[in-house]
Amino acid sequence: MTPNNNIILPEPTLRRLPWYLAYVEILKARKTEYVSSTQISRALNVDSSQIAKDLSFLSLKGKTRIGYEVDALVETLAEFLGFRTSHKAYVFGAGSLGLALMQDSGLSKYGLEIIAGFDIDPKKTGTIVAGVPIHNIDDITEVMQKTPASIGILTVPVECAQETADIAIGEGIKAIWNFTPYRVKVAEGIVMANTSIYAHLALIFNRLNAEQ
Amino acid sequence: MTPNNNIILPEPTLRRLPWYLAYVEILKARKTEYVSSTQISRALNVDSSQIAKDLSFLSLKGKTRIGYEVDALVETLAEFLGFRTSHKAYVFGAGSLGLALMQDSGLSKYGLEIIAGFDIDPKKTGTIVAGVPIHNIDDITEVMQKTPASIGILTVPVECAQETADIAIGEGIKAIWNFTPYRVKVAEGIVMANTSIYAHLALIFNRLNAEQ
Repeated sequence: MTPNNNIILPEPTLRRLPWYLAYVEILKARKTEYVSSTQISRALNVDSSQIAKDLSFLSLKGKTRIGYEVDALVETLAEFLGFRTSHKAYVFGAGSLGLALMQDSGLSKYGLEIIAGFDIDPKKTGTIVAGVPIHNIDDITEVMQKTPASIGILTVPVECAQETADIAIGEGIKAIWNFTPYRVKVAEGIVMANTSIYAHLALIFNRLNAEQ
Repeated sequence: MTPNNNIILPEPTLRRLPWYLAYVEILKARKTEYVSSTQISRALNVDSSQIAKDLSFLSLKGKTRIGYEVDALVETLAEFLGFRTSHKAYVFGAGSLGLALMQDSGLSKYGLEIIAGFDIDPKKTGTIVAGVPIHNIDDITEVMQKTPASIGILTVPVECAQETADIAIGEGIKAIWNFTPYRVKVAEGIVMANTSIYAHLALIFNRLNAEQ
């Protein structure tokens, strides 16, 4: 069932595949049976040869003149992107963003299961938020043994970002999803993804300002 | 005080400036007085000539052999990036992510003030979450008149993304911050920023998988 999904996909392809999935999910809800790359192209403003190339990574080929079967495309894309498999994660930093992510049930629909949080504030450690227990960072070795995870979501204050990532990786975390504006450095082989909320805000503010 | 911040900055510069800010904020907390572009370069892995170029947009020049004054750099960067000015925003879609953003007090520290939410679910409309009133989308004209905003944060289900953006823009929203995986189209002159949470998840899952 799973197509060759231990090949490393180019980042631009990984950025576009979720767009295709979102679009074909809408078609599925509308009970559309087939979709052509030309249709996807028009809807999403992506070159249709690019779409065919991206989808070829999934060993998916459309039928001439009919296109791709919508239901199969939804399933194959979601499976291929890892959204149908549960990936366990810890949240480091139970501040407002960290707590927000724990409460965002949408993430679990896309394969991310937050199973524990860590903080240093004694008012937070020992509590449970949206079913997720918050531990003291000192207990990470024990937590990792009992309920291991491979992804560390970083929502600590900037000044603790590097140190926290180092601790997490030292305990066996394989991927860091960094929400802080700090540019965390990791050893080769550790997966790193930066979600630059503040860079996006800066972009919006700059463009709005320039238009006035 | 505000440097020429109605010039349109290149996106890569806008991505790097918040890194510099995060780093110099740490230095400020440590009471460091001066920082050179070489130091920033080493800490963040960015070419020092690139840093000097990026900072020149702020009309900031370091002193030879001493570098930049840390306190001034923090203030100028934060001001220049728009983080010291309040920008009013609505959240469209009071699902788990929308509610999470309303509760994330961190955003207001960076200049984003969420003043209203919109939804269609009668169980949600009329309620107040973290001080933010949630209205029915049908009341947007009235809300926009009483408490106007320029930024629309999109956290609706994918199938409503385009329609909701169209409504928001029709009412005068000037910038869309899109958290949905749908590729929303907007007219020229409307600011668009995509925060691709799902693309980042896909990237993490793909890279983790490839390593096994």
